[in-house]
Amino acid sequence: MTLGIIGMGLIGGSMALDLLRGGFADAVLGVEQDSAAAAAAQRIGLCSEVVSLDECVDRSDIVIVSVPVSAAPKVLREVLDRFQATGATDKIAIDVCSTKESICAAVKYHPCRSQYVATHPMAGTEYSGPWAAQPGIFDAKACIFADTEESSPKALHAVEDMYSALNMRIIRMSADAHDVHAAYVSHLSHIISFALALTVLDKEKDDKHIFDLASGGFSSTVRLAKSGAPMWVPILMQNRENLLRVMDTYMDFMESFKDALESYDEDAVRELVEGANKIRKIIR
Amino acid sequence: MTLGIIGMGLIGGSMALDLLRGGFADAVLGVEQDSAAAAAAQRIGLCSEVVSLDECVDRSDIVIVSVPVSAAPKVLREVLDRFQATGATDKIAIDVCSTKESICAAVKYHPCRSQYVATHPMAGTEYSGPWAAQPGIFDAKACIFADTEESSPKALHAVEDMYSALNMRIIRMSADAHDVHAAYVSHLSHIISFALALTVLDKEKDDKHIFDLASGGFSSTVRLAKSGAPMWVPILMQNRENLLRVMDTYMDFMESFKDALESYDEDAVRELVEGANKIRKIIR
Repeated sequence: MTLGIIGMGLIGGSMALDLLRGGFADAVLGVEQDSAAAAAAQRIGLCSEVVSLDECVDRSDIVIVSVPVSAAPKVLREVLDRFQATGATDKIAIDVCSTKESICAAVKYHPCRSQYVATHPMAGTEYSGPWAAQPGIFDAKACIFADTEESSPKALHAVEDMYSALNMRIIRMSADAHDVHAAYVSHLSHIISFALALTVLDKEKDDKHIFDLASGGFSSTVRLAKSGAPMWVPILMQNRENLLRVMDTYMDFMESFKDALESYDEDAVRELVEGANKIRKIIR
Repeated sequence: MTLGIIGMGLIGGSMALDLLRGGFADAVLGVEQDSAAAAAAQRIGLCSEVVSLDECVDRSDIVIVSVPVSAAPKVLREVLDRFQATGATDKIAIDVCSTKESICAAVKYHPCRSQYVATHPMAGTEYSGPWAAQPGIFDAKACIFADTEESSPKALHAVEDMYSALNMRIIRMSADAHDVHAAYVSHLSHIISFALALTVLDKEKDDKHIFDLASGGFSSTVRLAKSGAPMWVPILMQNRENLLRVMDTYMDFMESFKDALESYDEDAVRELVEGANKIRKIIR
């Protein structure tokens, strides 16, 4: 099995590592526009060669599109176009994007749509690039398969095997439902972490020692604020409608806290905190 | 050296563990109103005995007040009153509260004020009780000493020795400055984590699978929402004025994100994310 990975970053690179080490892939062919990243990916051993998109598609059994969500629809179309042009009816393409509606819409009527499986492995770190690739980040995490009725059973089966090799739990849902869920449990977390970082960095302008007190609690809440703009700006833009709705709910709760504190209403503050504490049953 | 610890919870218990193991304390006497916690503290070995407050004060060299911030001023006054009543001019008291203005104000004019050092070891976890005590949580973290000009050099020196035994970095500042800093780097993080938990739990009412997608990013941002109400409600209430000001700044940044997303202004979103990314230079 030869794997083609277009975009040798954190996710593509980490998948390469685990799928090579676990024996699912015999070889990985990389596609990477950035020359420093391309050289690093080979040096680190994430891929044996860096080739053109067409060569990657022609020589691979499964092609993984792991580029930022703004570029992914175009790249995926190029992959499917190449399938069509070369009569490659056995090859399979997947993407690993954090949004699913726009990429599914972009190829909805493509003649090779059934050879494509829309996936989102829910894993990662706040770092990016081939340098950030690490083994084991997918282990025991959830992977969303979106709009699976549009994919052929054969393609689905092959991609299920691949994610099973990464020990991921597969959950199926529509692309729309995925994006709503992602707004709640991923994209909102990023926004509030960015806003927290901005708040404290703003204070640092007139108070150089503000971070002296930063402890583990602050670090974990602000961790996602290190997530890079090239990956995250397109995600936030693509999922803006869902995100705006979720942000409204979130800001209503922030306002409830503010009202309770302003009116010195200890019972109301307690009710909010105890309500939030119910998260204990979910997150251990 | 005999250490008295009033309140055998996460912080008091963890200090006991490290100070006993490191040899700073020969014995720890605990004071604990909750009988289950008292029994657990002895069983776990956090203290050799659980005694009354007066007995604890009379038999200890340093008394640590580690109760919730709402109870701490009264308890500290009782400790200092006991110093005065028994003529114990060599004994030292400290508190470990997450707010410093109100406790410092509560004992400002006490005849034994100079025997008290106001401290805040910036460490902990989202769990509470003697069961949550663990070794090493203070290692290499910051500890604030507040209003040190009110403490005697002798008391300060002894308490510095104690925190050095825990390998903490000591930072001195006024109680007022402490509470402003804490609002930024600790209390705000808790509020936004509580609000995030409430937002997603609210969604769960009509969507039982919302947490299926929760990954590491969500878990770290929402972690603090597990922090218990008995400890945190009093902290939020005591520091409400600073916290409300910081929340206003934070909500302004959230509004900026909202405006940028609503107006489909990708450049503005990028500017906000890149601004937040500057946190990388602070938090590794």
